[in-house]
Amino acid sequence: MPAFTPAEFVKEEDTAEGAGAPNQTLWISEAGGLTQFGAFVEVLQPGTRSSIKHWHSAEDEMVYVLEGQVTLVEGDTEKLLNPGDAATFRAGVAVGHCLWNRSASPTRCLVAGTRAAVDNITYPDHDRVCHRDRSLPDDIWLDTAGAPASSPY
Amino acid sequence: MPAFTPAEFVKEEDTAEGAGAPNQTLWISEAGGLTQFGAFVEVLQPGTRSSIKHWHSAEDEMVYVLEGQVTLVEGDTEKLLNPGDAATFRAGVAVGHCLWNRSASPTRCLVAGTRAAVDNITYPDHDRVCHRDRSLPDDIWLDTAGAPASSPY
Repeated sequence: MPAFTPAEFVKEEDTAEGAGAPNQTLWISEAGGLTQFGAFVEVLQPGTRSSIKHWHSAEDEMVYVLEGQVTLVEGDTEKLLNPGDAATFRAGVAVGHCLWNRSASPTRCLVAGTRAAVDNITYPDHDRVCHRDRSLPDDIWLDTAGAPASSPY
Repeated sequence: MPAFTPAEFVKEEDTAEGAGAPNQTLWISEAGGLTQFGAFVEVLQPGTRSSIKHWHSAEDEMVYVLEGQVTLVEGDTEKLLNPGDAATFRAGVAVGHCLWNRSASPTRCLVAGTRAAVDNITYPDHDRVCHRDRSLPDDIWLDTAGAPASSPY
């Protein structure tokens, strides 16, 4: 039966500079072998964020706050999300977004996003576009003029 | 900014026979105009279930328990899910499933599922298949032999 406790989610950890504990990505989709969308619980430590600001050309995304207060940064605006609140990011809407934990406690969000065959992820504050073709082994990074470029991470 | 409090989710209600209060489907995807997958908070009253047992030919599904104890029924087996637990249903896995609230309190789950262009939903306990083509106005119900049939609901 494809049911999982949190300890059975597929865990990835990454410790941001200056953070006392790692951020966690706890994959539900990977635990269950789903391929059409990704779904995970994201744990953000105080002072850290989910990513740098980005938007997807071809993939819908959704965030639901499980615990704590999370700042949604979108373009030049910000909004504080509380537990039970949600945010949606429709494919092709050209406004960069990320989640930032500016609180004093870890936060937890449930995140879901489509897995399109091909997607371009634009990082408007970093002059970068990630070309993702899931049939290829690696992402290809370009600047917004289309020249080969380094990853902004 | 596409951020929503629970009061801003798109609400559907349906009161099951004998239930004192309605079950609720609180659509996040519809609030935000997402099209590639559906996402909603499902509130089940004591004694009610999410659907009759079914499986999808073409759509991955996922459930995450937010509040209460929910019984996952899959084929002939059952499992009690607690808050923080999740279950996944991969497209094409031919085992019917549903969620049943057998507890004394309302339960809340977050549910996400792909929206495929065409999907066949099989109801193994009811000899029914729902043929869903999202380019057509209505679902088409057949029995498992392929003859036109009534909805099992």
